[in-house]
Amino acid sequence: MTSMYDTRLERNEANHAPLTPLSFLERAAEVYPERLAIIHGDLRQTWGQTYARCRQLASSLQQHGIGKNDTVAVMLPNTPPMVEAHFGVPMAGAVLNALNTRLDPETIAFMLDHGEAKALIVDPEFAGVVAKALQLRQSATPLLLIDVEDAIYGEASERLGILTYEQLLAQGRADFEWVLPGDEWDAIALNYTSGTTGNPKGVVYHHRGAAVNATSNVLEWDMPKFAVYLWTLPMFHCNGWCFPWTVALRAGVNVCLRRVEAQAIFNAIKTHGVTHYCGAPIVHSLLVNAPAAMKEGMQNLAQGGVKCMVAGAAPPASMIEGMEQMGFDLTHVYGLTEVYGPVTVCAKQESWNGLDVGERARLNARQGVRYHLQRAARVINAETMEPVPEDGETMGEIMLRGNIAMKGYLKNPTATDEAFRGGWFHTGDLAVQYPDGYIKIKDRSKDIIISGGENISSIEVEDVLYRHPAVLAAAVVAKPDAKWGETPCAFVEIKPGAAVTAEDIVAHCKKHLAGFKVPRAVVFGDLPKTSTGKIQKFELRKLAGSADAIDV
Amino acid sequence: MTSMYDTRLERNEANHAPLTPLSFLERAAEVYPERLAIIHGDLRQTWGQTYARCRQLASSLQQHGIGKNDTVAVMLPNTPPMVEAHFGVPMAGAVLNALNTRLDPETIAFMLDHGEAKALIVDPEFAGVVAKALQLRQSATPLLLIDVEDAIYGEASERLGILTYEQLLAQGRADFEWVLPGDEWDAIALNYTSGTTGNPKGVVYHHRGAAVNATSNVLEWDMPKFAVYLWTLPMFHCNGWCFPWTVALRAGVNVCLRRVEAQAIFNAIKTHGVTHYCGAPIVHSLLVNAPAAMKEGMQNLAQGGVKCMVAGAAPPASMIEGMEQMGFDLTHVYGLTEVYGPVTVCAKQESWNGLDVGERARLNARQGVRYHLQRAARVINAETMEPVPEDGETMGEIMLRGNIAMKGYLKNPTATDEAFRGGWFHTGDLAVQYPDGYIKIKDRSKDIIISGGENISSIEVEDVLYRHPAVLAAAVVAKPDAKWGETPCAFVEIKPGAAVTAEDIVAHCKKHLAGFKVPRAVVFGDLPKTSTGKIQKFELRKLAGSADAIDV
Repeated sequence: MTSMYDTRLERNEANHAPLTPLSFLERAAEVYPERLAIIHGDLRQTWGQTYARCRQLASSLQQHGIGKNDTVAVMLPNTPPMVEAHFGVPMAGAVLNALNTRLDPETIAFMLDHGEAKALIVDPEFAGVVAKALQLRQSATPLLLIDVEDAIYGEASERLGILTYEQLLAQGRADFEWVLPGDEWDAIALNYTSGTTGNPKGVVYHHRGAAVNATSNVLEWDMPKFAVYLWTLPMFHCNGWCFPWTVALRAGVNVCLRRVEAQAIFNAIKTHGVTHYCGAPIVHSLLVNAPAAMKEGMQNLAQGGVKCMVAGAAPPASMIEGMEQMGFDLTHVYGLTEVYGPVTVCAKQESWNGLDVGERARLNARQGVRYHLQRAARVINAETMEPVPEDGETMGEIMLRGNIAMKGYLKNPTATDEAFRGGWFHTGDLAVQYPDGYIKIKDRSKDIIISGGENISSIEVEDVLYRHPAVLAAAVVAKPDAKWGETPCAFVEIKPGAAVTAEDIVAHCKKHLAGFKVPRAVVFGDLPKTSTGKIQKFELRKLAGSADAIDV
Repeated sequence: MTSMYDTRLERNEANHAPLTPLSFLERAAEVYPERLAIIHGDLRQTWGQTYARCRQLASSLQQHGIGKNDTVAVMLPNTPPMVEAHFGVPMAGAVLNALNTRLDPETIAFMLDHGEAKALIVDPEFAGVVAKALQLRQSATPLLLIDVEDAIYGEASERLGILTYEQLLAQGRADFEWVLPGDEWDAIALNYTSGTTGNPKGVVYHHRGAAVNATSNVLEWDMPKFAVYLWTLPMFHCNGWCFPWTVALRAGVNVCLRRVEAQAIFNAIKTHGVTHYCGAPIVHSLLVNAPAAMKEGMQNLAQGGVKCMVAGAAPPASMIEGMEQMGFDLTHVYGLTEVYGPVTVCAKQESWNGLDVGERARLNARQGVRYHLQRAARVINAETMEPVPEDGETMGEIMLRGNIAMKGYLKNPTATDEAFRGGWFHTGDLAVQYPDGYIKIKDRSKDIIISGGENISSIEVEDVLYRHPAVLAAAVVAKPDAKWGETPCAFVEIKPGAAVTAEDIVAHCKKHLAGFKVPRAVVFGDLPKTSTGKIQKFELRKLAGSADAIDV
């Protein structure tokens, strides 16, 4: 028998609305129309103006025949059109595909084809690479090309389309009556994985997940209304961890930034009162290692203070210390493209406050616990699908479950099914879980080094390398070995002015690691990094084969 | 043709979970097990302990045959069992029906019958009234009676059941494997309206709305993690505006309070570092009008500071000023049982800061704009269903739409359909909307006074009365009149030690109101109030017929 609680008590327009971050913009413009939304060079744009422009964008896209479930690709740095695209494109019913601006023409062409883009908005800086990509594109579908103009960059090398971004907006109506998505499960964005193996996969985000992760960002950071957010993290990376939507939810300020440079960041903090920013470790290193004069006054400004999120690698003790000295508060998060950016956080405990920085760094180096509104994050044995014991030793795979997860991979049901096998999203990251429930990554499945039948966590070796005072960055990969199968090979970037030998590095590692984990080869030089500061281990693996072994 | 974005990209266990505040408790216990969750007298209970006890409660209820969609009623003040019931009951799949503890046995009996309660948890203070209600109950369904023991209250006048609350919990398992609701649209709570006309209506809340409103509370208040929340607002009133769930979302502290008394509130603020509390205007008046010695030190404590929410009536300038002098920050919200408590907020604008307190009070007296995650709040012409012009003059009805709205009225589809007519929830409150989008209530539909064909807003007249320095509380209702149909009749409660005549009051009103709006009768005395401090106008209406008219 149907319960009285399920009888004539259905959803209707009055008591149910799709969850979507588009509502965040609408409310910010409604309640705080005069508050600042975007700073870019000399540009100051309010939430009222931003909402009007997003409606114009949506209106104009629809006039050009772009609507529900059409893909709109953008090749943009962290500029105002990029913020606006995060709202205007889905307000037209379309799906935003923010392309990684560091990619080569071949990959861009692949994404335009695979994502079936109907429009492409291009920053002048990338006109050249896009022009090449357009020649490589195989699809015959017409592509509406929009050229952004940006005085801060200057002239584009070439014009791609017949419309500028401002002309496109001018065609649209500021009072355009956009509608909420019919279903919160509708797609809002398409983000391609880096595709270190095989073709990139197209990760599809839904409105519900975007709203839930954007809200979780606020909850994790205790982010107040009117927060001033600096765009050091590329918005093409997991939609900037959903922060374009989070900033709207707080009626905050987007401080745009074309280039991640220490001086520009410090200036923005001083001039605009930046309160929050995110980035890979490289971004924070940049600040910590900046000249003292540049850092002056940060401590006072940060009373209260500047909050930062780091992901991509655990922040070493030296970074935590350096950030503290500047008065910055660093939060370590972990995530992947498939889960909208951050999905676990190393939530700090009161009991850690009294500990020395080394111990705090050790605790804080863990990937932590599930993000606020995520359902679960567990280390699970991928074969049995049973959670591993919380002993800090038993390895398993980090698996996730809840509303902060993609719809799946576009046009790739096999990969989708595999990723969601057993009702959990499989991250591919190997980890342990501690008695306090905190997760710590031991390695990517593919980064583990197997030497003489023993598993070596490349991250464990890297952590030791980072503790050496001369080391700026380090990565360890497997080097094929006739005797052991594989041995660890270390690639090390040295701090400016520091001097160190391979023997020094090896001696340092021997002090802190079991013999079989000590690198058998050490290579000095700049490390290849992705646009988000992630070290490209697949490049290093190619080099490792020819690296010289040291007798340890 | 189905879009590629809707093909093989379905919801599954890994990427979709029901939104429910039960997850908030689970995470608080998982991430902050040792942090304080509940203070009650000498009791200190952590989130780990609270979660274990809620699981015991759910487990034990299930052992007693109570499960999905069964109603569990509670007759409890703001004590730990009341906090626990907000989680333990729905963790059993059941629906929490928190009864208003000020109600008479007849009404309690009606609610137990209508809500088909299967269990009833009773505080010792209310054993007597419940015993009488049980005799009046018509249903033959067995009712599991649970007696709470509370040393702070003392012995109950009688034992109702065979089990105490602690015995019930002891029967349950702390590792009980509860499950999320099958659907976020499942019922979580049943709350009866005050039923000033006819029988009370049973308002059914869903998990989704509870989670969304609890989150909106955080967003509105910028409520940080570990906030210390004082329970001045009854949890039986709209589930304490969803704050039992909000506090869990922040891993904060519930400071329980059996009785709302100034000394106890100031003590709690000083002793436990209370940061937030809510209440009707009467609660805040109590503090503002407390002796100076009691208020000492509040300003320093409140650095940062104590944040309060007020609803039920606009806070007069004197209250805003008094609160500011104590260093308290008051937020004016508006809502109804049907929308989980607060659903609009008078969001403060930076531009108001420079204004004098009278002007700020005027702006702040408005019901404001939609709550953070609510879809829309509009003043609409109920006949045409068109929004009224935002001119601050045209009256219409406040209507709401979005996820913060009930499933409907239990076993009352006619009332449900009427309430949701046209895809909006009809509040029954008459209001105007200003050019800045802010809503201001002019009156409840039923409170409007129609005199000589002119509508008189009782609230407008009351606002004027409150501006008189001798007035502590005031209410204006219609008095039948042979000539005019109705005339305004004022009921006035005078501040202790103040002296004022009916003529003084009338003279004061004449200065500020059109002649036809000036009360024709003034009655002095204590005003009848509900448990939440709302003045009971239906009682006053009965008296108004016999009140003496004054010639104005």
